[in-house]
Amino acid sequence: MPTIFTKIINGEIPCYKIAEDANFFAFLDINPNAKGHTLCIPKKEVDKIMDLEEEAYMGLMAFSRKIGKAIESAIDCKRVGITVIGLEVPHAHVHLIPLNEMAEATFQNKVKLNPEEFEAIAAKIRSKMV
Amino acid sequence: MPTIFTKIINGEIPCYKIAEDANFFAFLDINPNAKGHTLCIPKKEVDKIMDLEEEAYMGLMAFSRKIGKAIESAIDCKRVGITVIGLEVPHAHVHLIPLNEMAEATFQNKVKLNPEEFEAIAAKIRSKMV
Repeated sequence: MPTIFTKIINGEIPCYKIAEDANFFAFLDINPNAKGHTLCIPKKEVDKIMDLEEEAYMGLMAFSRKIGKAIESAIDCKRVGITVIGLEVPHAHVHLIPLNEMAEATFQNKVKLNPEEFEAIAAKIRSKMV
Repeated sequence: MPTIFTKIINGEIPCYKIAEDANFFAFLDINPNAKGHTLCIPKKEVDKIMDLEEEAYMGLMAFSRKIGKAIESAIDCKRVGITVIGLEVPHAHVHLIPLNEMAEATFQNKVKLNPEEFEAIAAKIRSKMV
């Protein structure tokens, strides 16, 4: 059965998309730690980050850097953090999280946003992509 | 003033070293979220991960993958997670954390280890380096 992320890539589940290329896809986390919290995933389903082939892993990290720099320009934050956990969805994903304080990196506090807010954030990050 | 991590690289502060190459250095986190929690750092001091030059960032991520795979072989865990926060030490660092449950990824619960335990863990991870 395809993962929820594969369904997002295929457009079967809607998302606030940030960017896409041949191998990778980025969209806003729907249950964000902070405004601008984004997920970057490989289109090919692999569960554990350390099980990605070297080329796919390096590609995902390069893609995440490009998105992370756009988030850092778009969102008011001290820096963008990176987190890979993966205990819930068996499809490797890189969290990019705009950080102002430690609490935003702990996945304990969540921010509620409405669809207009998500769309505005996504548009702003997209506008900073180079 | 050099960061605490630069002092570790220079041997001015002791550490449980995992690996080192020309540009990167890995050692056990002294205040670990879980047994085997390791830090990977560039030898050149740069504060924010997104400010690393592309080559340094990609090198750090490749180095972290190599260490992460060794940790996954050495330590009993479901997977190794990756976290970059950086609000405390202004020297970019990648946390590699053996995860069995979400609590180990939140930086809220810490594990106490004695020097013999740290040394045994470091030796076991080093033995899995390829």
